[in-house]
Amino acid sequence: MRSVWIGMNAMDIDTPALCLDIEAVESNVMRMAEFARRTGVNLRPHAKTHKSPMLAHMQLAAGAIGITCAKLSEAEVLAASGIKDILIANQIVGAHKIARLVNLAAHSEVMVAVDDVDNVAELNAAAQTKGVQLRVVIEIDIGMGRCGVAPGQAVLDLARQIIVSPGLRFEGVMGYEGHVIFTPDPEERKAKTEASLKPMMESVDLLRRSGIPVNIVSSGGTGTYFITGCYPGITELQVGSYITMDSQYREVVGIDFAYALTVLATVIRVHGEKRAIVDAGLKAMTRDFGMPYVLDPPGWKVTALAEEHGFLERVDGAPLKRGDKVKIVPNHGCTTINLHDYYYVVRRGVLEAIWPIAARGKTY
Amino acid sequence: MRSVWIGMNAMDIDTPALCLDIEAVESNVMRMAEFARRTGVNLRPHAKTHKSPMLAHMQLAAGAIGITCAKLSEAEVLAASGIKDILIANQIVGAHKIARLVNLAAHSEVMVAVDDVDNVAELNAAAQTKGVQLRVVIEIDIGMGRCGVAPGQAVLDLARQIIVSPGLRFEGVMGYEGHVIFTPDPEERKAKTEASLKPMMESVDLLRRSGIPVNIVSSGGTGTYFITGCYPGITELQVGSYITMDSQYREVVGIDFAYALTVLATVIRVHGEKRAIVDAGLKAMTRDFGMPYVLDPPGWKVTALAEEHGFLERVDGAPLKRGDKVKIVPNHGCTTINLHDYYYVVRRGVLEAIWPIAARGKTY
Repeated sequence: MRSVWIGMNAMDIDTPALCLDIEAVESNVMRMAEFARRTGVNLRPHAKTHKSPMLAHMQLAAGAIGITCAKLSEAEVLAASGIKDILIANQIVGAHKIARLVNLAAHSEVMVAVDDVDNVAELNAAAQTKGVQLRVVIEIDIGMGRCGVAPGQAVLDLARQIIVSPGLRFEGVMGYEGHVIFTPDPEERKAKTEASLKPMMESVDLLRRSGIPVNIVSSGGTGTYFITGCYPGITELQVGSYITMDSQYREVVGIDFAYALTVLATVIRVHGEKRAIVDAGLKAMTRDFGMPYVLDPPGWKVTALAEEHGFLERVDGAPLKRGDKVKIVPNHGCTTINLHDYYYVVRRGVLEAIWPIAARGKTY
Repeated sequence: MRSVWIGMNAMDIDTPALCLDIEAVESNVMRMAEFARRTGVNLRPHAKTHKSPMLAHMQLAAGAIGITCAKLSEAEVLAASGIKDILIANQIVGAHKIARLVNLAAHSEVMVAVDDVDNVAELNAAAQTKGVQLRVVIEIDIGMGRCGVAPGQAVLDLARQIIVSPGLRFEGVMGYEGHVIFTPDPEERKAKTEASLKPMMESVDLLRRSGIPVNIVSSGGTGTYFITGCYPGITELQVGSYITMDSQYREVVGIDFAYALTVLATVIRVHGEKRAIVDAGLKAMTRDFGMPYVLDPPGWKVTALAEEHGFLERVDGAPLKRGDKVKIVPNHGCTTINLHDYYYVVRRGVLEAIWPIAARGKTY
C-alpha cells in the first residue's frame, strides 16, 4: 500500500517516521564484518536491535555465521524468513513455550541458553517427544546478576547433564558483559571486560580438561566488540546496536559507527527563537538512559519528551519555524525501533523502500 | 489464529502478555459515565491510552459523546471502526497530513485543534478544495508551555479568522492541565487546576461577549476529572487512563479506579529467596515516570528493567520459584499499551477474547 511512496523526497514522509540511512547501515555492516575477518572471530549479530529479517540477511550476506535474538517469538520471525542458525540468548521457561521451541527446532537450527538443571530436563523431554535434538549453550553469569550459572563447577555439572540428554546437543557457553559495556573510560572498560571474560574462559578450560568439546564461546556487545573479539578463546560476538547505532553508544563510550537511525519529526509549534515543539515524543523514541540527540538542524537539543511531543531548546543554531523537519538520533536504538512498525529506508535523501519491523513487539 | 486459545486459564498465556481484567474495565467505564451523568458534563474519552476501537465503542455505549485521540493516524483507525465524532487534540501540520485530514473529514465528523493563523489558513484551503467543512477547536495553552495560543485576545483573533473561513466550522476551545495533574496534594491540585482553567473560561466569556458561540470547552484528565468536570463552563472531559488505570495515577495522586491492566510475566531465574528475574522488561512495560507495581504475588517490587528482563526484589512476601507467574501493573498505561499488539481479555481468570491494539504505533 505504501509502495507508491517509493522515490519521494525523504523529508516529505509523514512524521514521526523511523528512517534508516541505508548507506550508513551498509558501511556499519561492512566495517564490523571486516573487524571479524581481521580478528578471526565469528559474528552472530543480535536481532533484538533491528528486529528485521532484511537486516539480518544483510549481516549474513556479509559473513555472519548466524543470528542472535532475545526471544522465542523473534526466533520464529527469523526462521520464517529462511534463517536457520539462530541463538536465543535467553532461557525458555514453561511447558507451552518449550513446545513452541522444539517445534521450531524441527524446522531450523535454533539454539537456546540454559542455566538450570530442571529447565535442561524439561527441554530434553520435550525435544525427545518431538524427535529433535535441540542445540543448547550454557549461559554463564559473568557479572550482571541476571541469568546464567556461576562460572566453574556449576558449568561443568550442567554440561555433564546436557551431554547425557539425548534430546540436547551441547554447543558451548555464552556470557554478556552488559554491566561494564557502558564504562566511559576505555582503559577501565577494557580491564573490566577482560576481568569478566576471564572466569568464563576458565570454565571453558575446565570443560575441555573434562573432555567436553566446546564449539561456541559467545559474548560481546557494541561497546566491547573490539575488546571481547580479541580476547583469546572467544569464538563469536553477539553485537547488536552497531548496525543502526544510537547516541548512547556514541556519547557515553565513544563508539564511532555511523548514525544510520533517525526519527524524522516536524516542528508543530515554536516559542520564540529559543524553544520548539515537535510531533515525536515517548511513543516515537525512548529516553530509557538519556535524551535523544538532534542531528539536524545543528544547535538544538531535546530537553523533554511527553507522549506525543518533543521539547527542543536552541543552544546555538538558527531558529526553527513551524513545519520544519528535524532529524533526531535515538538515544537507545533497541527500544526505539521496537516502537515502530516500519523502517523508511533512505538513500541519499530519497525513499528507497519501506521495510516492516517484523519482530517488533515479539517479546514472548 | 489465536482464537483457539479462548477459554484457557489466563495464567497459561505465553508471557509477557498484556492482560485486561474486563470486569475492572467495565466497572471503570460505568463509574466515569455515572460521574458524568451526575455532574452534567460530557465525556469524550481519550483513545491515546487504550488505542482500541473495542474499548472506544464500550465508552460510547456507556454514554460518551465522542472520542478524543492524539494523532491523525489514530483518528483513521477509529473512523475505520465506525466512530464518527472524533477530536484530534493536537495540531496537524504539513500539506500531506492536512490532505489526509480533510479526506477523513469527508467520511467522519473529525475535529482538530488549532493554534496558529497560518495553520488555520492551510486547513481552510484544503477543506475547501476537498469540499468539506472541517470542525476545529482552538487549543489554549493553560500552563503546559507546549502547544496552544495564549488565553485572551489571541483566542478571539483566531476564532474570528476561523469564523470567516468557509472550509472550517468553529466548535469551541480545549486546554489540558497536564502540568498540574500529578500534584500529589489534593487541595493543591484542585487550586492549581482551577487556576489553570480560569483564563480559559475568561477566553470563552470573551468569545461569547464578542458574539461567537462556543459549543465545546474541553479539558481534564484522570487526575483532575472530578475537579475539571465540576468547573463551571466545562462541557466535556478528555479523560484517558481511568479505563485501564496504572500505578502512577494510584500511587502519586490517589486515583482509585480499578487496576484493569497487568503485564503477566514468568520468573525465569531466582537468586536465593530475595531476588527474581522475570521475562518482561523495557520492551513489555515502560518506566517513564517510575517502576511498575507488582500486584501479585504480594510483597515483591520491581527494582530495575533491562530490555527483556525485569529485576524483582522481595520485600516481605513468600519466595518465588522458576516458572511462577507474576502480575505487574504498568506505571504508565499509555506508553505500555503502545508496546503490545494484543490485549488478552480476561474474565475471572479465563481468557475471553484477544483484541488487537489497533492504533498501536499510530503516531503519525
